[in-house]
Amino acid sequence: MDIATLDLEGVLIPEMWIAFADAAGIPELRRTTRDEPNYDKLMAYRLAILAERGIKLADITRVISGVDPLEGAGEFYSWLKEQCPVVILSDTFSQFAAPVMKKLGSPTLFCHELEISPDGSVVGYKLRLQDQKRKCVEAFKSLGFRTISSGDSYNDLSMLRAADRAVLFRPSEKFASENPDLPAAFDYGELKNILSKFLSEK
Amino acid sequence: MDIATLDLEGVLIPEMWIAFADAAGIPELRRTTRDEPNYDKLMAYRLAILAERGIKLADITRVISGVDPLEGAGEFYSWLKEQCPVVILSDTFSQFAAPVMKKLGSPTLFCHELEISPDGSVVGYKLRLQDQKRKCVEAFKSLGFRTISSGDSYNDLSMLRAADRAVLFRPSEKFASENPDLPAAFDYGELKNILSKFLSEK
Repeated sequence: MDIATLDLEGVLIPEMWIAFADAAGIPELRRTTRDEPNYDKLMAYRLAILAERGIKLADITRVISGVDPLEGAGEFYSWLKEQCPVVILSDTFSQFAAPVMKKLGSPTLFCHELEISPDGSVVGYKLRLQDQKRKCVEAFKSLGFRTISSGDSYNDLSMLRAADRAVLFRPSEKFASENPDLPAAFDYGELKNILSKFLSEK
Repeated sequence: MDIATLDLEGVLIPEMWIAFADAAGIPELRRTTRDEPNYDKLMAYRLAILAERGIKLADITRVISGVDPLEGAGEFYSWLKEQCPVVILSDTFSQFAAPVMKKLGSPTLFCHELEISPDGSVVGYKLRLQDQKRKCVEAFKSLGFRTISSGDSYNDLSMLRAADRAVLFRPSEKFASENPDLPAAFDYGELKNILSKFLSEK
């Protein structure tokens, strides 16, 4: 029996901090791990900006309600979940992603959590598990599944390499060239074709 | 972070073999593990009846398309998947359940598979994993989740006992009296209340 694990940002929805930065008009929040490779430092920087501006969870939710899934993502996800169970593996935070996930029908999402104070301020974050994408794929394999994964970037690599079958979705030229043995899809039609082929293999 | 694992038959949809037996007008298929406790023998009996009557997967799919989820199940499931990730753990077969699962929006379902021959006949079945309900809950715990489970009967017991929090849904009097320490819900309103309480605990 097959299970599909998908990365979220870049595969079904936009990069959320960038989408939030743009929708909220706070360009400082466009900073990503490319600018600050230390994730803890990057998150501390982001949370400091939220605190400075008095932005609470309700404000974030309101802004993110205006963010849409990528064009075609809804149809693709509806198709995939009729083929096999699907679990989305992401290093986003559940409260942060919730409004846009709702537009996809609230898929099964394994991610992390923001820490919210009683007054609704974002005071921290809790990583559920380090390297969870790889560990989840390994757990699914141990539960008798053949695993099929798709992701777009470096933080998906351990998941893609742990999976029985993997396909890159809209990778950068650099990422694709570093992983020449993995097929790459650049639109949902191509992704469906590659996944269909994997699913039809016995 | 919480994850909810739900039994399927009796919690979201009717007992499928009984529903199929009734919809197809084949009373012999109402036989369950209560009548034949040996599951392999029971499945051999069921598959022999399908073969005898020349019933193929397409016929099963057509009949099961007429079966609906339990009344209120859709609304309950829609609510729950907005609270936390939900995985349905069932000993049904994916092809058998698919038409009624579609009416719930094709939730993430971990189950087993029927073996279908090239001409569409049901020739066997493959259990993905023995005691998968318990093993899935244990795997989710090892992946950093707090687990919340609900089920109605004996084949859920190892899952319910492995979970951090558990609630019985419409248990028989006997099953409830044998598990007096577990709360029981008899409608979706009660189930939502008990799950909400679990979810709000830190």
